[in-house]
Amino acid sequence: MLRIINQWTEAQAELRRICDRAHDEQIFNKEATVREVLQAVKRKGDEALLAYTQEFDQQSFTADQLRVTGSELDAAYRQVPDKLVAAIRLAKKQIEAFHRMRVPQSWVNFGDDNIVLGKRYTPVDRAGLYVPGGRASYPSTVLMNAVPAKVAEVPRVAMVTPPGPDGKVNPVVLVAAQEAGVDEIYRVGGAQAIAALAYGTETVPQVDVITGPGNIYVMLAKKQVYGTVGIDSLAGPSEVLVIADSQADPNHVAADLLAQAEHDPMAAAILITDDANLAEKVAKCVEEQLVDHPRRTLTEKAIAHYGMAIVVDSLEAAAALSNEFAPEHLELEIAEPWDLLPKIRHAGAIFLGYSTPEAVGDYLAGPNHTLPTSGAARYASPLCVETFLKHSSLIEYSPTALQKMAGAIDLMTAAEGLPSHGYSVKVRTEEPS
Amino acid sequence: MLRIINQWTEAQAELRRICDRAHDEQIFNKEATVREVLQAVKRKGDEALLAYTQEFDQQSFTADQLRVTGSELDAAYRQVPDKLVAAIRLAKKQIEAFHRMRVPQSWVNFGDDNIVLGKRYTPVDRAGLYVPGGRASYPSTVLMNAVPAKVAEVPRVAMVTPPGPDGKVNPVVLVAAQEAGVDEIYRVGGAQAIAALAYGTETVPQVDVITGPGNIYVMLAKKQVYGTVGIDSLAGPSEVLVIADSQADPNHVAADLLAQAEHDPMAAAILITDDANLAEKVAKCVEEQLVDHPRRTLTEKAIAHYGMAIVVDSLEAAAALSNEFAPEHLELEIAEPWDLLPKIRHAGAIFLGYSTPEAVGDYLAGPNHTLPTSGAARYASPLCVETFLKHSSLIEYSPTALQKMAGAIDLMTAAEGLPSHGYSVKVRTEEPS
Repeated sequence: MLRIINQWTEAQAELRRICDRAHDEQIFNKEATVREVLQAVKRKGDEALLAYTQEFDQQSFTADQLRVTGSELDAAYRQVPDKLVAAIRLAKKQIEAFHRMRVPQSWVNFGDDNIVLGKRYTPVDRAGLYVPGGRASYPSTVLMNAVPAKVAEVPRVAMVTPPGPDGKVNPVVLVAAQEAGVDEIYRVGGAQAIAALAYGTETVPQVDVITGPGNIYVMLAKKQVYGTVGIDSLAGPSEVLVIADSQADPNHVAADLLAQAEHDPMAAAILITDDANLAEKVAKCVEEQLVDHPRRTLTEKAIAHYGMAIVVDSLEAAAALSNEFAPEHLELEIAEPWDLLPKIRHAGAIFLGYSTPEAVGDYLAGPNHTLPTSGAARYASPLCVETFLKHSSLIEYSPTALQKMAGAIDLMTAAEGLPSHGYSVKVRTEEPS
Repeated sequence: MLRIINQWTEAQAELRRICDRAHDEQIFNKEATVREVLQAVKRKGDEALLAYTQEFDQQSFTADQLRVTGSELDAAYRQVPDKLVAAIRLAKKQIEAFHRMRVPQSWVNFGDDNIVLGKRYTPVDRAGLYVPGGRASYPSTVLMNAVPAKVAEVPRVAMVTPPGPDGKVNPVVLVAAQEAGVDEIYRVGGAQAIAALAYGTETVPQVDVITGPGNIYVMLAKKQVYGTVGIDSLAGPSEVLVIADSQADPNHVAADLLAQAEHDPMAAAILITDDANLAEKVAKCVEEQLVDHPRRTLTEKAIAHYGMAIVVDSLEAAAALSNEFAPEHLELEIAEPWDLLPKIRHAGAIFLGYSTPEAVGDYLAGPNHTLPTSGAARYASPLCVETFLKHSSLIEYSPTALQKMAGAIDLMTAAEGLPSHGYSVKVRTEEPS
């Protein structure tokens, strides 16, 4: 049952509760477990990696078996229907096209006195992608992580993913990895896989950046290794916020809410509308669509705990509430979505109009589906090519330029009490006595 | 005494030791302390903030006294010499000019079938800047953090800095903050200041991004609150790597090495040269410049532990070693620095030629002096305007576009077992039966 809220302060409190829901979990105890796993893999390499794979994934691998072989990759293509391969190729093409737009380019600026300043962009040497197994084993995740890395021209892209009960990796995931240009794949998951990528083992290469979603252990591991390597973000459970007006189709809105709820019992699905009538209708459609839903139990749980329809006075009020929540996905199912856009301050991805369900962005519109969650859109961005790039500042001064700046530098170094800083300029600009 | 290393594998091992030096500290015990401080401030707000300020900074403030007043800011201008104010203004102007270059702009792309895709950049609502006190109380730090935030058009920029023994903030720091446009200043430091910015208290506003350097407690606090807020980086001790050829002036190179070493006993100063003779001369100049150095003890300690000259066969070999280290600051004191640049893969800031000492970049060349340390230049960038911006993906589909993509989306949603994802497209594209 989709709850309907008409009261502003209740809506605010509920949105805050939902935003904080990821912190409800017993994170503290898990941190110690994760630390132990990280330390063991750092110290013992493959040996620890194999022991944890036995313990957590019930697979008795040797080190040689960690890497997915070429013949397994070939076999995957025989197992996946041609039509699905074609869909993956279409998605890859569109994701690549979007990520190629406006990639930051190195530049220099030539100023007075032969001063040259600039920024030089270079890719990381190695990237590591985490692809979850089990309930969330998605080829789309592979594409959304690997394609930007390859657009950034990362020379070596390694992927890790937990083995299934048969010790294998989902063939659709393998095909997506091949299509996206992943260079090597290891069947290892959990915090131990993050440790392997951060520190390297005899088999798994040490990387510079780790991206991709995962369960709470993977997230805690990413946070702990941050600083040793770069990470994309700390992703929590997924969420959609739909702003809809009286012209929105309640059946469409309901489908969009359920498309989020069906991910995970922790997923959040929120409607904000200026039409109380629409809220009622959407609630009814949600009920109807749930009747035969193949993932009904899980989806109902999400709707019950983290689903709601909020009725407000105006679309401006809806935008204000949305900004407080800073949703991962924001759908504007309204007649004039571009007119409301300037009022939106924080959102991971914004889907405009009645014909843009989130699903189109989840798979193949092109923009990334790895987005900031749990209010992180206040300060964070979607995964992008820049996740795999970094820049260096470039500075070249001429003797004349340095001479002109020497006085100001001298005053500032003196104020900060750093004599050698001052001397390094003076020794270049003052006549030897 | 600057040690000279001629052996490649010894050089590699030494560079690795130096890169890992920040991890030598007893981080583990401090993490528990930091966690306690964060939790207390989160729960008790100002009360905890004032108690920790009493305990760690020996200042008995009331909540009203936390914020620096307008009359204190006015008084600061009377205390700071006009010439120094002018130098700060020059630095601010140049930093601002550089950071205004190539700020990412929102864009949209109009594709076939009325598909619109784009990226919209928006600033964070609030930024918090940490400015250290004590040995590292630097007006340049204020400028380098606050100016990019203001170029990003962050509406509210709050600064925190520990009070001095007299309970006041360094007037030069206050002038720099005023010049840079900081909106509010609080005299509070340490992990408790980071907690106040991350969670908010009755007096200190909750922010979206926290930037700025600090001691090990500040760094650990930033790492722990990452995810609740964004952070710039986890800065460790500072480092310079100078690549110099036979034409470099040994006295200049020595001054540049000492300008790094004088920061901190943990600072690293490394020369790599293809001229053994130059290495000897630089070592001699270092000795000479240390004789009357006002910060001799500290600086000598840094040189002894984390200083060295490495002699290699060629400048290409120097670049290769430098890439393994990924230095925060890289000086190319060589005849043709732009020719070696393509061989450099990782560095925070690169200073080209004989007339570009690091000090010019530390203060006023324009590029940011907050740079990735301890090898983080492998994956991270200097602090920049983007630190205070985030983007949202924009996606608008037309009914025709959605129709064309419906088949591929259906195949992928089926492969991932997410029925409502598929239904949200079907319900919009299939004729009602």
